[in-house]
Amino acid sequence: MEILKVSSNSKPKAIAGALSFAIQENKNVSLQAVGAGAVNQAIKAIAIARGYLAPFGINLVTYPEFKEIEIDSEEKTAIRFMVETR
Amino acid sequence: MEILKVSSNSKPKAIAGALSFAIQENKNVSLQAVGAGAVNQAIKAIAIARGYLAPFGINLVTYPEFKEIEIDSEEKTAIRFMVETR
Repeated sequence: MEILKVSSNSKPKAIAGALSFAIQENKNVSLQAVGAGAVNQAIKAIAIARGYLAPFGINLVTYPEFKEIEIDSEEKTAIRFMVETR
Repeated sequence: MEILKVSSNSKPKAIAGALSFAIQENKNVSLQAVGAGAVNQAIKAIAIARGYLAPFGINLVTYPEFKEIEIDSEEKTAIRFMVETR
């Protein structure tokens, strides 16, 4: 499972490119975001990646899961976006 | 299509309840969010609704779309989360 870590500073188009590439390589891929700004960028990236992949007949869907992670010894709740084709 | 409008002040559990109810009634439902805070609440709601629906054998997935909307005569870009069962 490839995990793309998304921050509030991540560029949605760049994440969308990496995500689309991974999907086209048939990799299992997910996005991980901590905080509202990062979640927003992740969602924009998925919306953009849907547009990149649609001409190839690929229809991306996602589902979010809560994931407890540790950052600098602090426990945070991340959102993990599982990404799949349909 | 039922559209649940989500704001940054919306309570994820309340949205999750409304979403789960609509899905169990076999309605077409989507969430609409403007801004990072609202997108974050919408995603939390979908994650929670997945937990509500899993015991019924219902597996929710979503996909985001950009949607131009008008709020107080200003054009804004909303994220529309299409919600489906798989």
